[in-house]
Amino acid sequence: MAKTLLVLAATLAAAPLAAQNVPQAAAPARPSAAAAEPAPEDWRDIPDDEILLIQLKNGRQVAIRLAARFAPAHVNNIRKLAAARWWDGESVYRVQENWVAQWGDPTEKKPLPPEILARPAAEFEIGAFTAAQRLSRPDSYASATGITADGWPIATDGTSAWLTHCYGMVGVARDQLPDTGTGSELFTPIGQSARRLDRNYTVVGRIIEGMQYLSALPRSDAAMGVYATEGERTGIVWVRLASQLPADERPHFQVRATDNPRYAAMLALRENPAPPTVATGLNVCDLPAAVRRRP
Amino acid sequence: MAKTLLVLAATLAAAPLAAQNVPQAAAPARPSAAAAEPAPEDWRDIPDDEILLIQLKNGRQVAIRLAARFAPAHVNNIRKLAAARWWDGESVYRVQENWVAQWGDPTEKKPLPPEILARPAAEFEIGAFTAAQRLSRPDSYASATGITADGWPIATDGTSAWLTHCYGMVGVARDQLPDTGTGSELFTPIGQSARRLDRNYTVVGRIIEGMQYLSALPRSDAAMGVYATEGERTGIVWVRLASQLPADERPHFQVRATDNPRYAAMLALRENPAPPTVATGLNVCDLPAAVRRRP
Repeated sequence: MAKTLLVLAATLAAAPLAAQNVPQAAAPARPSAAAAEPAPEDWRDIPDDEILLIQLKNGRQVAIRLAARFAPAHVNNIRKLAAARWWDGESVYRVQENWVAQWGDPTEKKPLPPEILARPAAEFEIGAFTAAQRLSRPDSYASATGITADGWPIATDGTSAWLTHCYGMVGVARDQLPDTGTGSELFTPIGQSARRLDRNYTVVGRIIEGMQYLSALPRSDAAMGVYATEGERTGIVWVRLASQLPADERPHFQVRATDNPRYAAMLALRENPAPPTVATGLNVCDLPAAVRRRP
Repeated sequence: MAKTLLVLAATLAAAPLAAQNVPQAAAPARPSAAAAEPAPEDWRDIPDDEILLIQLKNGRQVAIRLAARFAPAHVNNIRKLAAARWWDGESVYRVQENWVAQWGDPTEKKPLPPEILARPAAEFEIGAFTAAQRLSRPDSYASATGITADGWPIATDGTSAWLTHCYGMVGVARDQLPDTGTGSELFTPIGQSARRLDRNYTVVGRIIEGMQYLSALPRSDAAMGVYATEGERTGIVWVRLASQLPADERPHFQVRATDNPRYAAMLALRENPAPPTVATGLNVCDLPAAVRRRP
């Protein structure tokens, strides 16, 4: 049966496009899979002080890449909170279905270390749009989107640019006013991307390992998905920068550079799938973080 | 503190838009919240034979609204599979992080009832684009998107139209060829919307209750997220149409009609949030299924 299917598939792939009921534009040239493979030099080390680790009480670990270049004030706060061991003993206290998982201090009463900025200005926008790879269509929230050379998903309205609230990105929770988030309470979208938070919440990072230990947590039916009881929370043992751990205990990560033809070929393959699959489009939030452990 | 925040927020809302660093277009008139509330007659009963219920072994239940009008051949198969009790004793056997949860027969060897179509033609497209409410921008996958009068998210390229693979929509798993899915193996996107499946997979429904009992299942690290061991699977006790249950055991659902000014006002409120929140856009997959239990 499997063999028959393969023969049929090959026949279909060779048939004229019109017979497959897809638009009759000329089929774009598809790069080879080999052309889309990263070269060894495409993997760039992420500095140890841009990796934030969350050790959960259930033994799982989550790794976040910090957007130090785009949200320096909030990332600076986060580094100081980790140094002060502020999150140790706190929890993941909010998991709202198709929205976010959020962690920190559920009481919002724990005193912050004096050395952090209590009201950093919002860092919603990141300056100019400098996408090494630009996606081919506008999306529902931006006139253009793309990926920076160092792998961050971004969007623009033609004037300003911002990091996009894709699945797994990390944002700064706050009260009603834009400058009321310190970085002590953080969240990540766990369902459909949360793009209506773009330019409304400061993005400080992206989860690069262990996302499933947040996305698969039980949802709360209580208001805003905040667990109604302490027993429902997932405890946090500690949060540290990799650079704050002993050298031999640090995980090391690398990100795939996008300013090269190999990454462009990868995008082209995604945008032009092999027949009989029809090309549909590509959203900036469809692209996973291209990150690996340093070999 | 909370009061101070509210006073500040009120001041900010009254300030000129320019001071808030948002584009200086005239602020659109926002409908009142009352204008966006559904009228009693906006709630329309969903027929009992368009509700598919999955009773999980852990005591949880998932309810799916079937897209009988758009995928009649596959929905017909699904009705017959439920009548034949074909899914009873099967399982949710695949949960892939930021992709899909899938259920049915993990061996793909269980004989299908003779009365179902073994190779129904793909039902990727639904005919003309007839959105009662059209969203204002194209998205990454379509020249226009919208919501049908009876609440289904759809998209078009100007020629054909299709149901969109949003979070919680239900698709027909298949092998490589388009007509190899019967409806016996079904999946739902559990992360970022799976829009690259649009026009490539038949959509047969949407989860309208209990989505969290699929989205929060443990992810599998095995190939394609298929659990490596039987013990990881979530057992299915039974699957039935509501119409196949005794009358007094049936749950009844209603969907909010969209072909009225109240739904349009709800969309306008979402697209034009109150300051200081900046308007970002609205994607068809941001709109949850507007469904409730019949009061």
